[in-house]
Amino acid sequence: MSSSIRIAARTGTAIELQAGDRLRIINTHGGQVVDTWAFAIQDLNEHLSMEHTRAALERLVPRAGDSLFSNRRQPLLRMTEDTSPGNHDTLIAACDPERYRSLGVTSEHANCADNMRTALATVGKPSCFVPTPLNLFMHVTWDQRGELTWRPAPACPADAVTLEALQPVWLVLSACPMDVNAINGHNPQGVDIQRVLPAEKLTG
Amino acid sequence: MSSSIRIAARTGTAIELQAGDRLRIINTHGGQVVDTWAFAIQDLNEHLSMEHTRAALERLVPRAGDSLFSNRRQPLLRMTEDTSPGNHDTLIAACDPERYRSLGVTSEHANCADNMRTALATVGKPSCFVPTPLNLFMHVTWDQRGELTWRPAPACPADAVTLEALQPVWLVLSACPMDVNAINGHNPQGVDIQRVLPAEKLTG
Repeated sequence: MSSSIRIAARTGTAIELQAGDRLRIINTHGGQVVDTWAFAIQDLNEHLSMEHTRAALERLVPRAGDSLFSNRRQPLLRMTEDTSPGNHDTLIAACDPERYRSLGVTSEHANCADNMRTALATVGKPSCFVPTPLNLFMHVTWDQRGELTWRPAPACPADAVTLEALQPVWLVLSACPMDVNAINGHNPQGVDIQRVLPAEKLTG
Repeated sequence: MSSSIRIAARTGTAIELQAGDRLRIINTHGGQVVDTWAFAIQDLNEHLSMEHTRAALERLVPRAGDSLFSNRRQPLLRMTEDTSPGNHDTLIAACDPERYRSLGVTSEHANCADNMRTALATVGKPSCFVPTPLNLFMHVTWDQRGELTWRPAPACPADAVTLEALQPVWLVLSACPMDVNAINGHNPQGVDIQRVLPAEKLTG
């Protein structure tokens, strides 16, 4: 079960997790956003939902110990560990071709929405619907009036978040290719993924 | 074109709007939340999206003058007028049977998700997908740490929001039946809807 996966800069992947499996998402170089989705294996129409998770947590951002909920209000994942400063985003849609066009990019641009679709298609689970991702390490701040500001991800090299599957899920991760605004420090990087061994679970 | 529609307490309706049509949503009794969705008539898979609207506005809550965007980042609606205190919610999923069960309700309970599905089915457009609504008049506040608090809607009787269709849409409205928490003052009420006449548009 122990294995390490490299997600190259600007790309995504889908990983099958059984209930109890834990995956550590490592911000290898620091400052990198990772768009994250989960889909119930038994029915891909059930997926991680930020609007249901915020309602359950009564908070904008999950933290270590929190369960993360589906659009059917079932716990799909738990964030068991977070060694980063704890900035994650639940508010902003995945980047997509229209987003880059609106930011003035005239050529094709890698994007998290296509990365999600490609990752699922690669494992034989094509989906045309892109739920709001959990944007791990993404630092969008809000003020009292609700104004939002996109900031560079403050995660340091080797900071990591560990997610535990509470049901069998396809976990989809995308090393966000955004290089037009500052969220990845204008330098999108790859990240590393490790399955956490049962022994580590006992001490983790 | 001028007409007035009453939405009874705890129920919903779907209204067809052509580009340029304006609808005034009147908080007749005050303190009532109205869950609001829009679906493009030419393709119901394109719908009003809170996560894309927040990204476009760079703000948690829309205000008068703002366009509201679809999951394809196209402007579907514009909020042309808001005589309420301006509290609206884009963060929280529509209430549904699971929500009431989690709040301890053991019997059947009217809910906005079913109201949306019923309203669309009534006009021959069944949908099993419930996007995050624009929760008009709903007062969920956030603090610096992102903690959320559900508060009674501060809208006064006759406060109103006017929405203009920028494309042909099915607008779906639900007078929220929530009576377990405080958002409707524990007393869900009906609301009134008026089509705004072209003459009013010129002076509005």
